[in-house]
Amino acid sequence: MSTQQENNFQAIISHAKEYGFVFPSSEIYDGLSAVYDYGPYGSELKKNIRDYWWKSMTQLSDNIVGIDAAIFMHPTTWKASGHVDSFSDPMIDNKDSKKRYRVDHLFEAHADKLTEAGRQAEADALLKTMDELLAKEDYIGLKQLLDDNKIVCSISKTANWTDIRQFNLMFDTQLGSVSEEANTIYLRPETAQGIFVNFLNVQKTARMKVPFGIAQTGKAFRNEIVARQFIFRMREFEQMEMQFFCRPGTELEWYEKWKQTRLEWHLSLGTPKEKLRFHDHVKLAHYANAAVDIEFDFPFGFKELEGIHSRTDFDLKRHQEFSGKKISYFDTEINQHYIPFVVETSIGLDRMFLAILSNSYEEETLQKEDGTKDSRIVLHISPKISPVKLAIFPLTKKDGLPDLAAEIFNDCRKNFKCFYEEKDAIGKRYRRQDAIGTPFCITIDHQSKEDGTVTLRHRDSMQQERINIKDLKNIIQSFI
Amino acid sequence: MSTQQENNFQAIISHAKEYGFVFPSSEIYDGLSAVYDYGPYGSELKKNIRDYWWKSMTQLSDNIVGIDAAIFMHPTTWKASGHVDSFSDPMIDNKDSKKRYRVDHLFEAHADKLTEAGRQAEADALLKTMDELLAKEDYIGLKQLLDDNKIVCSISKTANWTDIRQFNLMFDTQLGSVSEEANTIYLRPETAQGIFVNFLNVQKTARMKVPFGIAQTGKAFRNEIVARQFIFRMREFEQMEMQFFCRPGTELEWYEKWKQTRLEWHLSLGTPKEKLRFHDHVKLAHYANAAVDIEFDFPFGFKELEGIHSRTDFDLKRHQEFSGKKISYFDTEINQHYIPFVVETSIGLDRMFLAILSNSYEEETLQKEDGTKDSRIVLHISPKISPVKLAIFPLTKKDGLPDLAAEIFNDCRKNFKCFYEEKDAIGKRYRRQDAIGTPFCITIDHQSKEDGTVTLRHRDSMQQERINIKDLKNIIQSFI
Repeated sequence: MSTQQENNFQAIISHAKEYGFVFPSSEIYDGLSAVYDYGPYGSELKKNIRDYWWKSMTQLSDNIVGIDAAIFMHPTTWKASGHVDSFSDPMIDNKDSKKRYRVDHLFEAHADKLTEAGRQAEADALLKTMDELLAKEDYIGLKQLLDDNKIVCSISKTANWTDIRQFNLMFDTQLGSVSEEANTIYLRPETAQGIFVNFLNVQKTARMKVPFGIAQTGKAFRNEIVARQFIFRMREFEQMEMQFFCRPGTELEWYEKWKQTRLEWHLSLGTPKEKLRFHDHVKLAHYANAAVDIEFDFPFGFKELEGIHSRTDFDLKRHQEFSGKKISYFDTEINQHYIPFVVETSIGLDRMFLAILSNSYEEETLQKEDGTKDSRIVLHISPKISPVKLAIFPLTKKDGLPDLAAEIFNDCRKNFKCFYEEKDAIGKRYRRQDAIGTPFCITIDHQSKEDGTVTLRHRDSMQQERINIKDLKNIIQSFI
Repeated sequence: MSTQQENNFQAIISHAKEYGFVFPSSEIYDGLSAVYDYGPYGSELKKNIRDYWWKSMTQLSDNIVGIDAAIFMHPTTWKASGHVDSFSDPMIDNKDSKKRYRVDHLFEAHADKLTEAGRQAEADALLKTMDELLAKEDYIGLKQLLDDNKIVCSISKTANWTDIRQFNLMFDTQLGSVSEEANTIYLRPETAQGIFVNFLNVQKTARMKVPFGIAQTGKAFRNEIVARQFIFRMREFEQMEMQFFCRPGTELEWYEKWKQTRLEWHLSLGTPKEKLRFHDHVKLAHYANAAVDIEFDFPFGFKELEGIHSRTDFDLKRHQEFSGKKISYFDTEINQHYIPFVVETSIGLDRMFLAILSNSYEEETLQKEDGTKDSRIVLHISPKISPVKLAIFPLTKKDGLPDLAAEIFNDCRKNFKCFYEEKDAIGKRYRRQDAIGTPFCITIDHQSKEDGTVTLRHRDSMQQERINIKDLKNIIQSFI
């Protein structure tokens, strides 16, 4: 990250805190590492993004239904999915500083130093060797490579390392409080498996025909060693996932279709095209035959926002194997039984929140009429998902203006989220709404009582227009 | 539970499974005890209840804002709240059967037997003694009482008991994967503390003035030994909580106000008055100076659905003490600093779901025109929260009727959740919508193409009327 990027990112984080979007979790106890709470405007924005996704996936789709599976699942689920055996990172501790590192991060940091020193070829060779050793899970070889390159801990400056060990990223806990009865269960590291184990139940009870999808939003948990970049990588986070079940052999067609559909979804929220890009996975996961990320240009560069994966029949097959229950679909069109293939779209709600926040944040310099300059912070959030849709201001606290304003407020808030305020100068009230991304403000003045009109002010253009109170609701509704 | 109640309850559970409302979690792995997943219609109903609560609490309230705090919190939170020290049940194991019991349940079962044998006075005396010993945490005395009454395990029939021990109901896990760095953290047993630790952040960033409330929905977890009665008592469940902060001395007025407001909320969803009642707590929790449950008449009798508690300043004071940070509010009206008092409304979303389901479920006998009888299963769910609002049926699959129906479907589903079906006889299609609680169905027939009208069929009355297609959306909207 450049200094400017870093400053910009810090400004967004501060703004998120100051205006009640995101607080560090348990802040009065000095926070909990890589866990965050959403405040009054943040919880509304997060809910609006979730609802917008849910509506587009279920209500507006012909063949997708939703579920809401529990975070706790039968532990065999995670054996079948492969998470118990291989959802882990190789880690190493420095015995002097007691600090723990992901082994690949140590090599990457060292390679960066080599590159900076103009030794690019050495850096490339080092990372290539590391990749080969990681692929073979040759931890003795990796430790030797660490020693050969004299890689030291950045704190203790020593190479006094422990052996390399695997750490599983799943959180575990005990179900049932009796030792002899207790079961180790896991906090789900992804919501996808809740869909796979319910495939037959959903297909039968909702009488779905392949191709069809199952959508779900919910919390997932990963015991990340290096959790960082604000809400980008958290230990507790929320996913919005859809698994689309199709006839074997058609999965790559659906994969292409979903790539486009998901990109359009992002564009529909006003995210500019140039801040989004596809990034094909070079190494495919063992279960996938095609995979791409939709990357967003975060303050710290292009990073994964959403993944679209052709997961084949891997998961359903594994659950069939581990449960001993037949998971099969009879396709009446071709008179065949098969295990459907799966195309997944998986997006992090918190990342999407950060993408919206960082894309919409602007410190704007304004030219005033008298030639002087002014500035404002504005969030250009799409009206479809902004926390507040309409702010309602009586110009003054007297002459019955608050009564008329309250009447409008009480009528409008039945339909969408409104905000009422009667204190401070109108300009100051506008600025506060700009800072939380409210797309529309109206001011009720003396003329309003005479002719039933109010001033409607647009957030982005700051243009004002006189409109009839009776048209107000329809105007706002047309934007949201 | 009487046999009839039991049968009725079992019928509801079967219906919930068959029609995609609630499945046992990880059912292909034979389920996970006391954990359930919500299916296609269940996830919609659950979301609609949550959204209805959220809207009434935040959007339609003058002085309540929302938050969305993480499940993971700093562990000191639970020391301050008292959960680490006293959120536990006294348990005992039978050494022969290896079965574990909650001690109070053993005594209650024994007292029931005495009552059945006409020995009411002995039963009462036993429970009184038990209460006294429990209050003193005299576990040696309790064990003696067990022996004196010759209470045996229902499986092994022996009195070969272990000592009585306390088991904390919080699930714990390790944050950070290094033993020397790892912290024991808890899955929150209630969402309330996420509100209390954020009190100052919310009050300042949303510029709230006391009295005001903070609302939150989210998962909570309790390692219940005896989890049972379907989704009534689960180990993983969802709460909808609101903490209302008020000036000390005014809390009992607010308490009365919230009792009424919450009762009216239940009535607004069509829950009949006679199935709801207030139940005052006789023993108050250490933090409360008034507490009442709103009980609902579940298939297994009147049980807690929602709690309204005057929690005093206990929680904020404790967090001030444990965090060392001043938690205080300056009230400009009376020029005083104080720690606000709190009135809480706390409802289980899953219990509310079960209340709606069991209240709306009916096996109805129908008198047909020809004198014979027919029957249907119908869910009389309020249109405000029903999973599907409108089902759209072309009478036949030809003559362009599906095209016209699809046109209506595509228009209406932008506004609310619709369902389209063209297969099977109309009567059969009606029955399926009755079973999932869809309040309205329309049929598109040949006349529709001529005069632009369709048949609107009402779920509860089964009355049909001819309406204009252009009025359809407004008619449905007026009910939801």
